[in-house]
Amino acid sequence: MTEDTVYLDHAASTPMYPEAVAAMTEQLTRIGNPSSLHASGRAARRVVEESRETIARALGCRPGEVVFTSGGTESDNLALKGLFWARRAQDPRRTRILTSSVEHHAVLDPLHWLAEHEGADVELLPVDALGRLDVAALRDSLERDPGGVALVSLMWANNEVGTVQPVGEAVALAHAHGVPVHTDAVQAVGQVPVDFAASGVDALTLTAHKVGGPYGVGALVVRRDLDVTPQLHGGGQERDIRSGTIDTPAIAGFARAVELAVARQAEHAVRVRALRDELVARLQEQVPDAQLNGDPDTDLDHRLPGNAHLTFPGCEGDSLLMLLDARGIACSTGSACSAGVPQPSHVLLAMGRDAEQARSSLRFSLGHTSTEADVEALVGAIAPVVERARAAGVAAGFGTSKKAG
Amino acid sequence: MTEDTVYLDHAASTPMYPEAVAAMTEQLTRIGNPSSLHASGRAARRVVEESRETIARALGCRPGEVVFTSGGTESDNLALKGLFWARRAQDPRRTRILTSSVEHHAVLDPLHWLAEHEGADVELLPVDALGRLDVAALRDSLERDPGGVALVSLMWANNEVGTVQPVGEAVALAHAHGVPVHTDAVQAVGQVPVDFAASGVDALTLTAHKVGGPYGVGALVVRRDLDVTPQLHGGGQERDIRSGTIDTPAIAGFARAVELAVARQAEHAVRVRALRDELVARLQEQVPDAQLNGDPDTDLDHRLPGNAHLTFPGCEGDSLLMLLDARGIACSTGSACSAGVPQPSHVLLAMGRDAEQARSSLRFSLGHTSTEADVEALVGAIAPVVERARAAGVAAGFGTSKKAG
Repeated sequence: MTEDTVYLDHAASTPMYPEAVAAMTEQLTRIGNPSSLHASGRAARRVVEESRETIARALGCRPGEVVFTSGGTESDNLALKGLFWARRAQDPRRTRILTSSVEHHAVLDPLHWLAEHEGADVELLPVDALGRLDVAALRDSLERDPGGVALVSLMWANNEVGTVQPVGEAVALAHAHGVPVHTDAVQAVGQVPVDFAASGVDALTLTAHKVGGPYGVGALVVRRDLDVTPQLHGGGQERDIRSGTIDTPAIAGFARAVELAVARQAEHAVRVRALRDELVARLQEQVPDAQLNGDPDTDLDHRLPGNAHLTFPGCEGDSLLMLLDARGIACSTGSACSAGVPQPSHVLLAMGRDAEQARSSLRFSLGHTSTEADVEALVGAIAPVVERARAAGVAAGFGTSKKAG
Repeated sequence: MTEDTVYLDHAASTPMYPEAVAAMTEQLTRIGNPSSLHASGRAARRVVEESRETIARALGCRPGEVVFTSGGTESDNLALKGLFWARRAQDPRRTRILTSSVEHHAVLDPLHWLAEHEGADVELLPVDALGRLDVAALRDSLERDPGGVALVSLMWANNEVGTVQPVGEAVALAHAHGVPVHTDAVQAVGQVPVDFAASGVDALTLTAHKVGGPYGVGALVVRRDLDVTPQLHGGGQERDIRSGTIDTPAIAGFARAVELAVARQAEHAVRVRALRDELVARLQEQVPDAQLNGDPDTDLDHRLPGNAHLTFPGCEGDSLLMLLDARGIACSTGSACSAGVPQPSHVLLAMGRDAEQARSSLRFSLGHTSTEADVEALVGAIAPVVERARAAGVAAGFGTSKKAG
């Protein structure tokens, strides 16, 4: 990030806390594989175990429940495949996996693989127009054949539109049938209160680079009494659930970031929520037909405090993104984009938007370094940018048909 | 590592080069997910792609052949499972995997899983007394049913005894039948010449923390025309072979380390080999019945330059390790040790040693920070340490029977 970038893409990755950088770099110049028996190895092991305790304290879990991984994608893959394999091994009837239709690709894609490769029956449950799971649909699906359900996976909060999911209700329903629940809490930790034990979930994904820690490290928090089949086999690290040399420096930075993000969460949420509310209100002053997506109730149990996701009718989201980028403002379309081909967001489609609305949207996500000046910069830029994107869209036929551009 | 540690465990993990620390820390304070489209994201992406080019130049491969992973274990898992699945999908008869009996657990354990879970027929081919693959056995096995072989996996050099494997011969034999070859080159890169294209291998594992880079990052180098089924599903990074947020800082440090390690390899090998030869000779002066394991031919195509692996008859390896550790000397038994229960090394057993010989061994591994003073310190400490370990071993009945202690 250059000094003068207006960075409104914290949901993609947020800057490291200086304290986390310091905790990590202090370890970079030390040697000692935490699996080695000598003094250098034991010193590294102590750093890892103290980090595990720090994270456990911050998240309301036990240190032994923290399994370090390379990040959110690996944690999600491990939770889904590991729980599916273990639960089906206990009872071959358990082939069903229930999840929402607005999960991140790190959940949807391993589920697709499990369906194709392992014969899993994956049910993508509907959400309402705000992106919130249809709890009645989950109940019905569970009750239809509870003995056939391997697991439920429901994200804590949506990465695109910021909607907080009814995880507690899902847990109550699933546990009534003895079904374990995984949650991808990558976007939630540090933004809203997250307590593993209090939530009742059985497995929880988090990743460091969304909470002010480094890339390349994350964790799956998972109850000790739950079997999880490993997906990476080797030296038997992390209670044999996740093999691979333990990354002491990244783990030290991760722990410091989680500690700070959770300690500061309440204050952070108040400050960032107010900034976000101002951003939305002032954008809508500038662009009166801009529509806020996700939950308009901005309480923390409804919406992430830093998320503003808006549809700008008649504009290509990618055009807006690039025009804002040219003015030094970084944001996201909030949807996957492979090889430059804009795809409408599966999240917005699941919320009932059509493909064109889905492709006319931008996500602004605020974080710990966001300031009033960032809001000012965006508000000052948005009207001419939208005007130009609309002109380009009209020229390209966008906004006049359902055809993908 | 405390300042005065005599660190002789470089094969477990070697200190980062200061240049790699600098390259990594420079990126830690920058923001920008390399998958983001805005300027910050594109800047991160440039760092990643330049790093890929640096690694490709150093290893004799194309940039597009470098798939970044979280390290050696993940790369091995990806290569073995990914090639097995893809090759079997092309032809269901391909269920056989041929490998050596002295591979690292990051190879053996995924193969065990493939056998248990996926119906793979894994053949652990024998090695000779020096730990070198029996090439005739590989030939016989290939010729018995070449159409049934999914892949061959043969490590470039053994992590315990340092024996360099006949990878070129294995490639020639396998390719004659159209069978791809994977090699775990984690111990080889930077120690001996490694050129991907010249070697003919189809897939090669390397990891940063063995070459002076950070933990938590590695690569699978794999030919573009080879299908590899992903094992981590999600955002589709790394040509869809390996999903997960790309770890720009670690990759920058990794690339700098590979560049330096390969550029310095020839000089490093001469210096470290001489130190190692002196270490072995002087240890044997002090402990005349100490036996060198692995190849006594110390040319680089036979033995890693920094590896000294010795059996000290009548001593428990773990006792030796702890007694040396108490004197500030860090080394390894070279064998896996779970939960404090010493297991005889599968490598030494495969080389024809009995369990007691296998458990009486130590690995000293030298690296880029090793000095004459390290050798002096070890030589000065070894005789009383061996004497004390022998006394303890006799008291415990070690050395008088084959019974595991």
